[in-house]
Amino acid sequence: MGAGGRIHIADMAKPMAGQKVLLAGWVEDLRELGKVSFVTLRDATGLAQIVVKGGLQASMDGLTRQSVVAVSGTVAETRARDFEVEVSAEQIDVLSRAIHPLPIDPLGRLESGMDNRLNARALDMRNQKTASIFRLRHRVLESLRQGLSKRRFTEITTPKIIGSASEGGANLFSLEYFGKTAYLAQSPQLYKEQMTMGLERVYEISGFYRAENSHTGRHLSEFTSVDIEAAFMDYTDVMDVLEQLVREACVAASECTIEQEATGHKAEVPSDIPRITYSQAVDELGSDCGVSFGDDLLDSHLRLLGEKHPGYYFLTDWPTKLKPFYIRPKDDDAEVSRSFDLQHGYLELSSGGSRLHDPSILRSRLEQQGLDPALFADHLRAFDWGMPPHSGWGMGLDRFMAVLVGVDNVREAVLYPRDPDRLSP
Amino acid sequence: MGAGGRIHIADMAKPMAGQKVLLAGWVEDLRELGKVSFVTLRDATGLAQIVVKGGLQASMDGLTRQSVVAVSGTVAETRARDFEVEVSAEQIDVLSRAIHPLPIDPLGRLESGMDNRLNARALDMRNQKTASIFRLRHRVLESLRQGLSKRRFTEITTPKIIGSASEGGANLFSLEYFGKTAYLAQSPQLYKEQMTMGLERVYEISGFYRAENSHTGRHLSEFTSVDIEAAFMDYTDVMDVLEQLVREACVAASECTIEQEATGHKAEVPSDIPRITYSQAVDELGSDCGVSFGDDLLDSHLRLLGEKHPGYYFLTDWPTKLKPFYIRPKDDDAEVSRSFDLQHGYLELSSGGSRLHDPSILRSRLEQQGLDPALFADHLRAFDWGMPPHSGWGMGLDRFMAVLVGVDNVREAVLYPRDPDRLSP
Repeated sequence: MGAGGRIHIADMAKPMAGQKVLLAGWVEDLRELGKVSFVTLRDATGLAQIVVKGGLQASMDGLTRQSVVAVSGTVAETRARDFEVEVSAEQIDVLSRAIHPLPIDPLGRLESGMDNRLNARALDMRNQKTASIFRLRHRVLESLRQGLSKRRFTEITTPKIIGSASEGGANLFSLEYFGKTAYLAQSPQLYKEQMTMGLERVYEISGFYRAENSHTGRHLSEFTSVDIEAAFMDYTDVMDVLEQLVREACVAASECTIEQEATGHKAEVPSDIPRITYSQAVDELGSDCGVSFGDDLLDSHLRLLGEKHPGYYFLTDWPTKLKPFYIRPKDDDAEVSRSFDLQHGYLELSSGGSRLHDPSILRSRLEQQGLDPALFADHLRAFDWGMPPHSGWGMGLDRFMAVLVGVDNVREAVLYPRDPDRLSP
Repeated sequence: MGAGGRIHIADMAKPMAGQKVLLAGWVEDLRELGKVSFVTLRDATGLAQIVVKGGLQASMDGLTRQSVVAVSGTVAETRARDFEVEVSAEQIDVLSRAIHPLPIDPLGRLESGMDNRLNARALDMRNQKTASIFRLRHRVLESLRQGLSKRRFTEITTPKIIGSASEGGANLFSLEYFGKTAYLAQSPQLYKEQMTMGLERVYEISGFYRAENSHTGRHLSEFTSVDIEAAFMDYTDVMDVLEQLVREACVAASECTIEQEATGHKAEVPSDIPRITYSQAVDELGSDCGVSFGDDLLDSHLRLLGEKHPGYYFLTDWPTKLKPFYIRPKDDDAEVSRSFDLQHGYLELSSGGSRLHDPSILRSRLEQQGLDPALFADHLRAFDWGMPPHSGWGMGLDRFMAVLVGVDNVREAVLYPRDPDRLSP
């Protein structure tokens, strides 16, 4: 069946009363009241009431809920509570029959466990809460890209199959690649840094991979990352960019009223995102926690901080030794780095900073961290060609979406999540 | 160095004469003419002439081409041929020194082989031809996404790590996944089809993987694919969408005048893309080629067709047996399928069609093609829940970009291409 003449339900309106229309969608509900039947038809854009009378009722024999139908009929004004107009059916074609019992209730009236929903994700997408999460994700992606484009960032695609286990090398999936060993990239870090040399400001939104045997609501082995890198920007500049992009995305999401209603969560729009230094956070945690400068903040510490700061906030100026080799220390205090994390409560959403651009300092930092500069030879070469100072960040999109739509488990915001126990469907 | 106060070269203009500015970029050229030196400074947005006089010339001692500098100075009108304004330098800071000899000439005056350029891709990105290809790619991606959004397609992200070697299973990379065998996805085909059940119209632009030992200018083992799938559309409808998107992207690219000039190729904007059936193509090839209905079109045949049709054209209505199991035959002739390829000359850019949505027909097609329906159990289940009729296509973005910018090898349009011989950098 083609799109020829078919209109979306959202495009019907009162002035169309009397017009013939062709609708297509799935049967969300049906009721027979003697000589008249009512079909509630849903498509991706909305819900329509279809009135079926007389001989046409026979064409609904055996019609099950969730079956796919095409309906032609005439638009009419209605007194039904939830509709502006209804369609008086003239023909109903059953295009695809849903066989019951279904594995989950797509209307969400009977609650299903997450595993059941993920195993029947296609049907789960008829649950308007689920569909709305992914429509909001679409809108957020659109907002992020528009924001980056207008700030002169060029979209890039870095390789996901890489030849050396760089960046520490732990937790990488490996594969055989035409007789060689290759790895799946954990981030675009080294490539995006190199690209600042000629393109200046770059971004990538893509899937990356982490072979970590984690079983939490915030770790997946395949995740979507939003990455930027910009020449001639300091870490405070890219923090500004992140703050603005987050705000713009939250505004965009909050304007999607139908989806916000379906998820039952109004996206919080942060005004100014507070910036707290690591040292201030250590002070806030107090001596009870036994944390002092140089200690990493454990999950328990972040949960305490999250209680004090339930919304978005930056944790800045981390000890250099806690950050990756490419993070640039401060000029006046090499123990402190030009770095930040974006937090939402206890949850880390993004991590970034200024990068080292001097190849000799980079080499010594690699050695300090017990990494072999020879493994980074391809990368270090580029720093001899005139590498601009640059800064950037990576943000976990799945976590950001979980915060934005108000769910605890990132799996709610990923179509087909991958974790140690879940490889299909 | 932060962005504070720094402006992009493209934002300088005559009315700014007399104003102080801070620029940053790399030294494309420098000439000393006695008491005055000229630096040609490039950033991602353009080229500026910097005039350096008197004592300041000393700060340029040892300055090499391609080194990164920050320049503060005063804007002045100029009589120099290629510039509207110039900057009279007051301070020059060398931020990063380029060590010569460089592996390639980033100005492209000395031609470098592709391998050398790919090995020094960061520096190659200072070649304005190369940078322009990737800026055009950015613009094309933006145009495609805008076009899809406005046609109510929702962006999705399907898993790239998959649990079964579906879709034939040949040419898949495999990896160990927490003690199980997993594969890298070759396409989002099955997932995107399932998503039409609730989201109706979906698209994905992402990397996919093919473990094929090919050594050509048009095959890579990691490639970017643009995929759409739409419920209630027939193959002619999604062909219309593809035709419009291609046209819109070509228009968007053709409006990037600076980049078009740098690539030396004006993007061809197709008006109506001709539609030729497979049977017509077989007739055109004539009996000399020895091709008759049901034979696949070989590279040599496509090259002959490409000579007759040097631009964009659709090849439609392929024999059912030449197409994947999920392609839907015509109602009146099961030997012919509702399918198409988008060609540019001999090069296949996209392949698509109407899909089967009846699970029993799908099962028998799988068996006909020697595939085990048990391997597709997760997928086939979804077809019992009320799967709408749907159609879609996948387009190789790298090939489309190669056509659009007028290069023969897709590697020119991929940052870090992957093939059997190339796994790094």
